[in-house]
Amino acid sequence: MSVFSPDVLNDRFKVRRLADRACYSREDIYAVIDASHVCHISFIDEGLPTAIPMACWRIADDLYFHSANKGRLSRCVTGQNVCVSIALFDGLVLGHSAFNHSFNYRSVVVHGVVIDVAGEAQKEAAMKAFMDHLIPGRWQDVRPMLAKELRATAVMRLPLAQAVAKVRTGFSDEEADCPDFPTWVGIVPSLARFREPVPDPLLNRVALTPAYLSACKGIDSVEESGNL
Amino acid sequence: MSVFSPDVLNDRFKVRRLADRACYSREDIYAVIDASHVCHISFIDEGLPTAIPMACWRIADDLYFHSANKGRLSRCVTGQNVCVSIALFDGLVLGHSAFNHSFNYRSVVVHGVVIDVAGEAQKEAAMKAFMDHLIPGRWQDVRPMLAKELRATAVMRLPLAQAVAKVRTGFSDEEADCPDFPTWVGIVPSLARFREPVPDPLLNRVALTPAYLSACKGIDSVEESGNL
Repeated sequence: MSVFSPDVLNDRFKVRRLADRACYSREDIYAVIDASHVCHISFIDEGLPTAIPMACWRIADDLYFHSANKGRLSRCVTGQNVCVSIALFDGLVLGHSAFNHSFNYRSVVVHGVVIDVAGEAQKEAAMKAFMDHLIPGRWQDVRPMLAKELRATAVMRLPLAQAVAKVRTGFSDEEADCPDFPTWVGIVPSLARFREPVPDPLLNRVALTPAYLSACKGIDSVEESGNL
Repeated sequence: MSVFSPDVLNDRFKVRRLADRACYSREDIYAVIDASHVCHISFIDEGLPTAIPMACWRIADDLYFHSANKGRLSRCVTGQNVCVSIALFDGLVLGHSAFNHSFNYRSVVVHGVVIDVAGEAQKEAAMKAFMDHLIPGRWQDVRPMLAKELRATAVMRLPLAQAVAKVRTGFSDEEADCPDFPTWVGIVPSLARFREPVPDPLLNRVALTPAYLSACKGIDSVEESGNL
């Protein structure tokens, strides 16, 4: 397993609270990102902390996101320090006491400076990677992008050098004070999955649902059996 | 429907990008919060934007969250400006072109100053509200909180006066350039639901799964039929 060198990760970005849940391996961090549709981008706007939820995807060692060209987000974050937060909720953890209840989750926090992806070919390649990530097979089946659409789109990337994951799985902590208290102790797994595709009654142009869509159950590989 | 007065919401916190998706009514904003397990709290730490995913819940007109007492989060955010971002992913929107693809989602962004919830009774009431929100009936069934547990817990609240929601539902935008391009157009709804509870083989103390747990399918009221 490839691991970021401890020298590479800034001390201030390491997990302090419940540090035994921290993961610093590339595989762990990328697995959380690749299972997520949405990230939350934090930046400083006129002196105040500000956050916006955004679609995100990964190419190699960068997190990507896109927005309207010359829009507020690209103006506020390009060349600026940001912090990106991602979390997947995996279920409830029920212990003997309220104090021993918790969530199972997978999360990632990234610090860094946002870089503009310039050039139409680079932007189009990034958008293809986004589509391939969400619905493999879809890109070949849609009307090709127009130059005006690429011009209207800002694509940005954030290097993943300063990233940490935090993951909780399994059952509750042991109850020290009253281990025989008569209550149900366990977990309730939560799972997000795609449902049947719904064709647009007005705009759809093909009768059959394409195989690449029927096969697409979601990008999160957590098992149906629950993330224990 | 009760609506925040436009005078109450600071202009700088209003939605600018795709403003027709913005919702400023209390009902819309609270519905998103009440369907969410996790929020992302952004704050400024030593001059840098920083974000942490946290469990959250609502009591009346405040968003609540909790952490370790005297931990980093409570030190960094109490009395400080924060921005809280919440997003629920509701599915993929497929249009004729990559440019016309989108996500359906429900999101909320809140700006404000975090207030410490002091006093053991107040903290315990807030924790009970949290549990009642997640699993109605559970609080009565667990070992009561101890004074040392309440002392170890910091409970914080953020007034919801400066909050906006942004919601996208339905099918893709119309395709102007090539409306007859032969591709499938529609949506793929995504749904997060609880699975069967899994008892802890070591710590569980009751044989039957309680009715309040079997009845609990999740806090998000979006319908199985898809959020059209």
